[in-house]
Amino acid sequence: MTYKIAILGASGYTGAELVRLIATHPGMEIVALSGERKAGLAMSAVFPHLRHLDLPDLVKIEEIDFAGVDLAFCALPHATSQAVIKQLPSNLKVVDLSADFRLRDPVAYEKWYGKPHAALELQKEAVYGLTEFYREDIRSARLVAGTGCNAAAGQYALRPLISAGVIDLDDIVMDLKAGVSGAGRALKENLLHAELSEGFHAYSVGGTHRHLGEFDQEFSALAGRPVEVQFTPHLIPANRGILVTTYLKGDPGQVHECLATAYEDETFIQVLPMGEHPSTRAVRGSNFVHLGVVGDRRPGRAIVIVALDNLAKGSSGQAIQNANLMLGIAEETGLMLAPCFP
Amino acid sequence: MTYKIAILGASGYTGAELVRLIATHPGMEIVALSGERKAGLAMSAVFPHLRHLDLPDLVKIEEIDFAGVDLAFCALPHATSQAVIKQLPSNLKVVDLSADFRLRDPVAYEKWYGKPHAALELQKEAVYGLTEFYREDIRSARLVAGTGCNAAAGQYALRPLISAGVIDLDDIVMDLKAGVSGAGRALKENLLHAELSEGFHAYSVGGTHRHLGEFDQEFSALAGRPVEVQFTPHLIPANRGILVTTYLKGDPGQVHECLATAYEDETFIQVLPMGEHPSTRAVRGSNFVHLGVVGDRRPGRAIVIVALDNLAKGSSGQAIQNANLMLGIAEETGLMLAPCFP
Amino acid sequence: MTYKIAILGASGYTGAELVRLIATHPGMEIVALSGERKAGLAMSAVFPHLRHLDLPDLVKIEEIDFAGVDLAFCALPHATSQAVIKQLPSNLKVVDLSADFRLRDPVAYEKWYGKPHAALELQKEAVYGLTEFYREDIRSARLVAGTGCNAAAGQYALRPLISAGVIDLDDIVMDLKAGVSGAGRALKENLLHAELSEGFHAYSVGGTHRHLGEFDQEFSALAGRPVEVQFTPHLIPANRGILVTTYLKGDPGQVHECLATAYEDETFIQVLPMGEHPSTRAVRGSNFVHLGVVGDRRPGRAIVIVALDNLAKGSSGQAIQNANLMLGIAEETGLMLAPCFP
Amino acid sequence: MTYKIAILGASGYTGAELVRLIATHPGMEIVALSGERKAGLAMSAVFPHLRHLDLPDLVKIEEIDFAGVDLAFCALPHATSQAVIKQLPSNLKVVDLSADFRLRDPVAYEKWYGKPHAALELQKEAVYGLTEFYREDIRSARLVAGTGCNAAAGQYALRPLISAGVIDLDDIVMDLKAGVSGAGRALKENLLHAELSEGFHAYSVGGTHRHLGEFDQEFSALAGRPVEVQFTPHLIPANRGILVTTYLKGDPGQVHECLATAYEDETFIQVLPMGEHPSTRAVRGSNFVHLGVVGDRRPGRAIVIVALDNLAKGSSGQAIQNANLMLGIAEETGLMLAPCFP
Repeated sequence: MTYKIAILGASGYTGAELVRLIATHPGMEIVALSGERKAGLAMSAVFPHLRHLDLPDLVKIEEIDFAGVDLAFCALPHATSQAVIKQLPSNLKVVDLSADFRLRDPVAYEKWYGKPHAALELQKEAVYGLTEFYREDIRSARLVAGTGCNAAAGQYALRPLISAGVIDLDDIVMDLKAGVSGAGRALKENLLHAELSEGFHAYSVGGTHRHLGEFDQEFSALAGRPVEVQFTPHLIPANRGILVTTYLKGDPGQVHECLATAYEDETFIQVLPMGEHPSTRAVRGSNFVHLGVVGDRRPGRAIVIVALDNLAKGSSGQAIQNANLMLGIAEETGLMLAPCFP
Repeated sequence: MTYKIAILGASGYTGAELVRLIATHPGMEIVALSGERKAGLAMSAVFPHLRHLDLPDLVKIEEIDFAGVDLAFCALPHATSQAVIKQLPSNLKVVDLSADFRLRDPVAYEKWYGKPHAALELQKEAVYGLTEFYREDIRSARLVAGTGCNAAAGQYALRPLISAGVIDLDDIVMDLKAGVSGAGRALKENLLHAELSEGFHAYSVGGTHRHLGEFDQEFSALAGRPVEVQFTPHLIPANRGILVTTYLKGDPGQVHECLATAYEDETFIQVLPMGEHPSTRAVRGSNFVHLGVVGDRRPGRAIVIVALDNLAKGSSGQAIQNANLMLGIAEETGLMLAPCFP
Repeated sequence: MTYKIAILGASGYTGAELVRLIATHPGMEIVALSGERKAGLAMSAVFPHLRHLDLPDLVKIEEIDFAGVDLAFCALPHATSQAVIKQLPSNLKVVDLSADFRLRDPVAYEKWYGKPHAALELQKEAVYGLTEFYREDIRSARLVAGTGCNAAAGQYALRPLISAGVIDLDDIVMDLKAGVSGAGRALKENLLHAELSEGFHAYSVGGTHRHLGEFDQEFSALAGRPVEVQFTPHLIPANRGILVTTYLKGDPGQVHECLATAYEDETFIQVLPMGEHPSTRAVRGSNFVHLGVVGDRRPGRAIVIVALDNLAKGSSGQAIQNANLMLGIAEETGLMLAPCFP
Repeated sequence: MTYKIAILGASGYTGAELVRLIATHPGMEIVALSGERKAGLAMSAVFPHLRHLDLPDLVKIEEIDFAGVDLAFCALPHATSQAVIKQLPSNLKVVDLSADFRLRDPVAYEKWYGKPHAALELQKEAVYGLTEFYREDIRSARLVAGTGCNAAAGQYALRPLISAGVIDLDDIVMDLKAGVSGAGRALKENLLHAELSEGFHAYSVGGTHRHLGEFDQEFSALAGRPVEVQFTPHLIPANRGILVTTYLKGDPGQVHECLATAYEDETFIQVLPMGEHPSTRAVRGSNFVHLGVVGDRRPGRAIVIVALDNLAKGSSGQAIQNANLMLGIAEETGLMLAPCFP
């Protein structure tokens, strides 16, 4: 059986990545693509790498007949998503890739995103989309909120450790390095090649990055008490990839064992042997997560490093993994593409 | 049905690319991987991006039992290939990715490769592997010689035009730009990141690049007279991609029509509308070729630009396309992966 | 003696490059910097790499008192330059880095730039700024028009050859590769890192690039007859650098000798030994031009390759070289910085 | 007055960087260049970007007549340096860029470098080359040991804070990101462009990087008690640049004030206003250090970020700064080159 798919906001990078992955997904067929400013254009005019595919042209959302759609991916900007999803048929399955439905607490939402939430009823219904940890809820969900790409990377490192109580919750440092595609296709000076290439820098320093809202929500819930991590992202001159280096107080052997056990049945999460650590290039373009643990020279300190592809496992791959569950398809369908190296 | 595949020389980039593509190929299963210097290692130790796959360890060629192998890809260095393939069972289907069996004339081989050919009998049997032009021969071949990656790019631009007689054969200029992975994983100073990044230069200037042997052979055969193109490759700070800009004397409209007609039934060759031209990033990681024609301001001059991925369509993708034909599988099987952008 | 310098349009890349070079120039002192949209900001807010310098803040042009200014560099966008320079004191020495005064023929200007010239009187006064060929005129000029960066590169290859009559004027092919900084700091989608990195493509194909106006003007004047070259630029994922590969009909030895002789007394033009050819990385950040000649395998054909840094010798370095002449300073003052490699 | 300079080990990146900087240094003249494997070659054959300079050819060290040499830079590999410097005239001023004389304790040397020190007498004489902190000793030194590039970056962040006692010494986390040129011109697979580009990873994880020897020595001496930092370097796809992000427990305002005061008279150390933080691209190719402090959302935690160019201020620029002091030249001579951006 082939499910009919709409992609709203298909003219950005996560939209294109959804199309790329669905191109070889045996159970999905794209029947509608929206792009407000690019409505009327062929997808190949916006993304020439998709030229070989037989795709519908970009239209405005209101032109789409959702009657024949089984599931919609919503790859719209933050805040726009809320307004759009509210207008969609209430029985349509939706995977939202924006930040709009990630935070369960409206106060937290307003704190991190600077305005009141405009679709609180929907928020209550939304399931947080970190597949490996919300799998059963996602299976029966109508609306799934894809996680932040950085938030996904950090949670793969820490969730099992917090649950198991094997690390000090008050001294967690997460130093993250990210390629530039996570910033999207927006026209910003600091995203120009001439600005970014051959240099690197931190951003959102001091605990101001919005994905901290997700860390706070999820880690505190797991711990049963407030947990506030330190988190500094850095922009790296590469297109794809997130590497997060976490500095933890805990026994390295115990940390490794806890993670290896937690993920031993997970197709997409690969825990490396003790002492090995990952590289973003080894997951590029794929839905795989590589995770390594190294003990520091100072006893009782562990370094956990996680690598994933921000557009794939961090956004669009995760979205398809969730959609597979929601549609009753085998979870890994269409997602076994090997990483593209070199 | 699943065919049993061996990859000889699996520790180089074309070997890894074969594994990457076969990973989601429904009709092939890898049963043996060789790597002389890396024998004994797991493939994931050599290429961590392939960690999720259940692959045989690297062995020496003589350890492989070819009885259970349906087809071998030979991704060994030039000259080594000849010696190895001579020792393989004479009924084993082989796709060779080296230069060893591309040139039909032993004199030409010696001229371009600097030593006499060591397997002349096999050379006679070999079919040149440019799929779209040797399809029927490949279908029944036992030994197929994959083309040079640059040679493939140039031929997609010129073969139909030479056959149709629509361009001046004496004034063909091919200016080629290539990413660095075509040079392989060899330890050479000029391939270091610190040397190559943020700079570009020509190499093999003046008609000395070995792929000219293929151009001379193929173009002269098509034209029924000697054809010698001018050809200058350039090394570009990118990992994948070949872009060849050809300067031709001929009517641009006729040139475009000739190419559009020649390729209209080809799955992997996309001729862009007149006046548009391609980019390597739009074919990255895929088996697709994008081809564009633009008329110069000077009447009677056409510019044909071709983009392809050197590791995929230029080497390992082409090899699998040929293997599909040799094994009686649908030609495009396993090769419809969309390009990976950004 | 130290001359007082104003830079109009200092918030773009050529403006910043002027400041970088003047920072260690012993005979120039920056007394005013303009930037329309960034007026009021410190230069270090716009370009943090200039933080260590004691520079005036950015102001609007009308706020500058030109009474104390010896020479103004005008790094404004095309068309804006005309209007601004018309308003400057008529005895102020000006080096213009825009395209506004490069073309002597108003008809040619309108053809390539799409609108009538708005300062025809000034145009008559302007001297074309390719230093090595207009040195004496520049020395006594009040207004010098800096060349296009691509136009400079191509002319270094061809001018002596056209003057000497050693090449066929009807079959000149110039294939140019350029880093991205030549496109400036403008917010355009195709200049984003995620778009440009790891890929390359042609642009302005078919004889539509505006620098052809300069080639046509200069080459035709030298030849005493119309000369129209074929010219295709390509965008390369690097920040700085221009490499132009020219395909010529002429005797390679004669071509090399002609160029070696023409440039033997030039400080900044380095002709490599016959058969060697240049790389952009070897001139990065400097005012040097590297030039090589290789004979093709086909007798009577020569390949001339030129490398320079588009922001330095192609724009701001050239501008300072010209300003030195106009101010009576030794021509190479402040310009002997060695290239920055790796 | 012009001092005569020899550079031993001139065929590596730090050697080339010394030549680049000395090229416009008014008080130094290069009279000898050594390169064991490249002896007999012109420097321009090894580094084409230095072609415009009138330099001596590369020779073997034993061919150099040190009688006419005022100071030698020794840019040889670790361990080789010891043996070579022992053989030099005992009154020759030497700046060593290797690790051989950085650690004062022979036991520490053997621990981090895996073999006994072979020139213990010289070790006693050597002055540690972090100019801003050892200035007076360097002025009168005969042998100065240049610091590790990572070690320099980390010490600029922490030395004043440790001296002032404003941070917790037991919870210092240093997450460092470095461009690839710090690894030198060695032929290693992981330094190839195709391996490194478009990806990033940690290395020497867990407290195994040799520059920890310098941190331990210096920080413990300053604190008067053992200090062991956590330190993880990462390899970034860029050629130059080090960015170190340090996570500290201490009052951010006090931290900023302490650093601003410590460096207020330093030409090369720029402390940014509170809350701002640096980028490597803003110091590229220069001797400047940019240093920023940001307070974390959690009170009592400060993030200090330092950027410098590993080849310039991290190695060869520092070496020249020290040589200037040793020769009685103004410290900043030849080092005021502005960073090269973009």
